[in-house]
Amino acid sequence: MASKNDVQALLFDVFGTVVDWRSSLIEEMRRFGAERNINADWAAFADDWRGLYQPAMEEVRAGRRPWTILDVLHRESLDMLAARYGLAGLNEPDLRHINSMWHRLKPWPDTVAGLTRLKSRYIIGTLSNGNVGLLTRMAKHGALPWDVILGAETARAYKPQPQAYLASAELLNLAPFQVMLVAAHNGDLAAAAACGLRTAFVARPTEYGPHQKRDFKADHDWDVVTDSFINLAGAMGC
Amino acid sequence: MASKNDVQALLFDVFGTVVDWRSSLIEEMRRFGAERNINADWAAFADDWRGLYQPAMEEVRAGRRPWTILDVLHRESLDMLAARYGLAGLNEPDLRHINSMWHRLKPWPDTVAGLTRLKSRYIIGTLSNGNVGLLTRMAKHGALPWDVILGAETARAYKPQPQAYLASAELLNLAPFQVMLVAAHNGDLAAAAACGLRTAFVARPTEYGPHQKRDFKADHDWDVVTDSFINLAGAMGC
Repeated sequence: MASKNDVQALLFDVFGTVVDWRSSLIEEMRRFGAERNINADWAAFADDWRGLYQPAMEEVRAGRRPWTILDVLHRESLDMLAARYGLAGLNEPDLRHINSMWHRLKPWPDTVAGLTRLKSRYIIGTLSNGNVGLLTRMAKHGALPWDVILGAETARAYKPQPQAYLASAELLNLAPFQVMLVAAHNGDLAAAAACGLRTAFVARPTEYGPHQKRDFKADHDWDVVTDSFINLAGAMGC
Repeated sequence: MASKNDVQALLFDVFGTVVDWRSSLIEEMRRFGAERNINADWAAFADDWRGLYQPAMEEVRAGRRPWTILDVLHRESLDMLAARYGLAGLNEPDLRHINSMWHRLKPWPDTVAGLTRLKSRYIIGTLSNGNVGLLTRMAKHGALPWDVILGAETARAYKPQPQAYLASAELLNLAPFQVMLVAAHNGDLAAAAACGLRTAFVARPTEYGPHQKRDFKADHDWDVVTDSFINLAGAMGC
């Protein structure tokens, strides 16, 4: 029977699992707003922007629009929210600057140390709905030591569609059971497990700030259940 | 007019430019042959194996066969050569071991130091006909500090087809003139330049050992012409 001893690559969900998107967006928007004398509830802005993420991807998943990368979906969502948050008068460079905040999201405190340990023994990479350009810049900004950038854009499918997981394993010449998905989201892990991947749950109970409603705990017997990348490294023998 | 000041990413040809495939293959085959009491001209074997590289890719480029990754093409070429070099009696794990020698090619002496300097200022990545799994394992083996693994497999086109260059720039959200191809091969640079990429020639006059016939020098006024990754880093302001 396949076990976690077969794992050769650990691929990571990124938004919420590797980086703290909410605090990062709030902090950058506070700074930006202060510089431009724009006052708004930046926590609500971050939550609303993220709230448009799943509906935007669903248009692609459902086949109602052709393949579109996340940077473009993010920008469309930003344009929808701009008037509500006092951003409608901004020029194109400013709006691009705000959209590129997703390229500068900060790692959780344990992220880089845990990844560095895991990299000594495994291939480590992304398996994210973020596009390659976004993830590459985020890695440089946050010193994330990925071996490889994979995900929706290289698979041409948004998670949780099976192709996102299966194409990522195939790009590494690996069978699904040789790949472990690491995520803070039970739904992502369930979709990966259905494709035959191994699974590790890392709790990130503050991802959604005071509005977190789910994923406080593993809701299934995943191969690893833990609360930090440091402890994940320990569980994986690093 | 676009200049090399616009460059945000340096993408590298790999076989011959980043790693010394010929010496690496000869060295591993000498060791393998000694262990198994197989005597053959391993330099000729390496040259013959590499000699089947362009014809194999041409079948894909010409549309006579569907997309096929380089690991598979390498293996087919190995199977064609096995009898001639006393390898026909080997079992499947042995043949896989030999095929995976392409995953363990050694960097030229200046490679890692030069890449490390360039990485401080630019996105650095592969733009190789090697597949993602091959390039990812080669990077771990040789400590190549890539930010991103790109090339034929992510573009679904083998160089020098334009799509190989254009799709790699697009995956980084960059226009072609914001990407520089670094290669030891004038033909690769000519194809990249025709797509609008910037170009850097790094001379590797021993790539083909005593059989080298071309690419001793730049045959065109490329944006950078140099003889090591260290000097490339200097030319690019790192």
